[in-house]
Amino acid sequence: MSSPRGNALVGQSGGPTCVINQSLVGVIETARESDRIDHVYGAVHGIQGVLDERLIDLGRESRETLERVARTPCAALRSVRKKPTRADCEAVLKVFQARNIRYFFYIGGNDSAETAHLLNEIALAQGYDVRLFHVPKTIDNDLRVTDHCPGYGSAAKFVASAILGDNQDNRSLPGIKIDVIMGRHAGWLTAASLLAREHEDDGPHLIYLPERVFDLDAFAADVDRVYKEHGRCLIAVSEGIHDAAGKPILESKEVDSHGNVQLSGSGALGDFLAATVKERLGSKLRVRADTFGYLQRSFAGCVSDVDAREAREVGRTAVRIATAGETPHGSIVLTRKPGKSYAAEVGCTALENVAKVTRPLDAEYLAGDNDVAPAFLDYVRPLVGEMPSAGRLSDFPVGG
Amino acid sequence: MSSPRGNALVGQSGGPTCVINQSLVGVIETARESDRIDHVYGAVHGIQGVLDERLIDLGRESRETLERVARTPCAALRSVRKKPTRADCEAVLKVFQARNIRYFFYIGGNDSAETAHLLNEIALAQGYDVRLFHVPKTIDNDLRVTDHCPGYGSAAKFVASAILGDNQDNRSLPGIKIDVIMGRHAGWLTAASLLAREHEDDGPHLIYLPERVFDLDAFAADVDRVYKEHGRCLIAVSEGIHDAAGKPILESKEVDSHGNVQLSGSGALGDFLAATVKERLGSKLRVRADTFGYLQRSFAGCVSDVDAREAREVGRTAVRIATAGETPHGSIVLTRKPGKSYAAEVGCTALENVAKVTRPLDAEYLAGDNDVAPAFLDYVRPLVGEMPSAGRLSDFPVGG
Repeated sequence: MSSPRGNALVGQSGGPTCVINQSLVGVIETARESDRIDHVYGAVHGIQGVLDERLIDLGRESRETLERVARTPCAALRSVRKKPTRADCEAVLKVFQARNIRYFFYIGGNDSAETAHLLNEIALAQGYDVRLFHVPKTIDNDLRVTDHCPGYGSAAKFVASAILGDNQDNRSLPGIKIDVIMGRHAGWLTAASLLAREHEDDGPHLIYLPERVFDLDAFAADVDRVYKEHGRCLIAVSEGIHDAAGKPILESKEVDSHGNVQLSGSGALGDFLAATVKERLGSKLRVRADTFGYLQRSFAGCVSDVDAREAREVGRTAVRIATAGETPHGSIVLTRKPGKSYAAEVGCTALENVAKVTRPLDAEYLAGDNDVAPAFLDYVRPLVGEMPSAGRLSDFPVGG
Repeated sequence: MSSPRGNALVGQSGGPTCVINQSLVGVIETARESDRIDHVYGAVHGIQGVLDERLIDLGRESRETLERVARTPCAALRSVRKKPTRADCEAVLKVFQARNIRYFFYIGGNDSAETAHLLNEIALAQGYDVRLFHVPKTIDNDLRVTDHCPGYGSAAKFVASAILGDNQDNRSLPGIKIDVIMGRHAGWLTAASLLAREHEDDGPHLIYLPERVFDLDAFAADVDRVYKEHGRCLIAVSEGIHDAAGKPILESKEVDSHGNVQLSGSGALGDFLAATVKERLGSKLRVRADTFGYLQRSFAGCVSDVDAREAREVGRTAVRIATAGETPHGSIVLTRKPGKSYAAEVGCTALENVAKVTRPLDAEYLAGDNDVAPAFLDYVRPLVGEMPSAGRLSDFPVGG
């Protein structure tokens, strides 16, 4: 199958990451080199920008601007949370035809894969040849097929660095500390807090994930036990924790067009858990809660080198596969190579394999109801890179 | 005046910083070299550790351990929030006498300077020769006399990096975003958010400081104006904002022994402000709040080089001045040298000049009711070090 000649369009969708612009620049630079592609356009605010015809010419950006953009967190093309209807998709196809767009690269999570899949079905039905590729990104790391998602390593580094510091803080001024971490459906990001545990008595002492049922009674009993043992307790908890019926422990009524309930951008869950601890274990206890919030996906200056490099490479590979012609559509995936030292291969899977359904933390990485298995460290360490080792005094006795 | 010969004791107090251990190691290494000092002890949990005689021998720590400790955030000796009574101080003096402690270095904020001052008065009254020195640290940067406080530069770097990223996040997915920043009495740390403003339309669009009266009506009107102009609004707000009567906009009932109300460790203020915006400007608006919390003082891996170096140097200088004998007690201060390129001198002032009263953000750095003056950038930039420059696409029109 030969690849068509025409223009390429790239868009960014969903919550940003610190390396989503690496993927964008990977797409742009490779598309600019391709003899199948005349112009490289960008859709401002993703699919909404296509509908509004807010397109920009990425072919004229300087190399220097692109490199600076690549190092900048969040979506330089600006993002959107929009699930297009069939009518929207038909309107998008009209724009594609009018602009002779033959390649569309959508950088996003599983919702974006679904959008690409929908567009693909309509294009096929209409007989319009456009190559649709999903370029994965998500700090949640919850896409299927791929070993891990670009964006995750940097967010995991942020979470591990925050918990490492907060463990020292909690050791300095003991008390009960609750840290709420992103991850609507999956505990991958919360699990990364395990990287901060170095000494036996280090936090996080308890880790709660959405892959388990969260029970307030068990939670209070866990905290009580740890506090009695260590005189302090550091807790890493996913924003996605829910009861046995699957109902979030605390939820607002705000819902986006994909049906996702708002969990982030509020300290409510952490404050609720802190109040619960005080109510059950004693109002005089020093209990604090922090919600790491948007810093996990946007903080400037906490990027994993591997993550940045891979994010760039998935963008490049998407264009290479699309223009090679053999694969008309798909989602880019990373496959971990066997062996002791870390290496990953970039490939492609069908859009429908990634769309819609998310991937929870692998069962093998769960340990009991409130911890993560050490095996997870082998998975996550290469994605995050080297973490600092926390120094600790030996506490030699006086006159000893 | 000659300096006594005996043992030295060092303690850490109050909220930690990312470089408070640099000061600790500066004290230890210099004390170990001094011929006036026989043993260097550490008080575990500050003044409480002296009362409980939880002292450790710092003379036996390896050089490698000390260097690793210096690079680790928060108080390696562990900290305390305790305002000692006169009886406590008398008990502390008894321990000093029993252990032949002739030098005491207390690393902390203005509360620690006050403790040192109290101890000094009692020691003088009793005729016991002990040299009492306060080694400054605080992310709040609110100590008098000194140009700035060790710990501030790194926390300011964290805040600026967080706001820089969050501005990109807010540009990616527009809405109203409120970021709550530490600083109980002073706006120094919140003001550092100004470092993130590069382009004319960059956030923070509004900055609220405790040096001004906070008015909810004016706040809502400000947000409405910015949102109408930019289609988005990023707000940096100090946790210490208060009404015309000086009453915090939102306060819990928890108070520490210095009479400080709990402001941090809760998302309540941010959530309250977000709810206020929705209530007044429209419930459909996308409004989010993040409270940066303890990450500002403990995050591992966001240290200002200048801050780390100066924190080490104030610790070293405290021991040098104490053992030189000419100054029997005092608080270490940094003085900025005149000239174009940044340089600071380390010196000493009287304990009572630093104790008790805090220093608000200089009036010259305030701009109106909701902004910080550009002159502040000259003050803060050298303390933080180089910040990344955010890349931005040129948005060239298609076919242009």
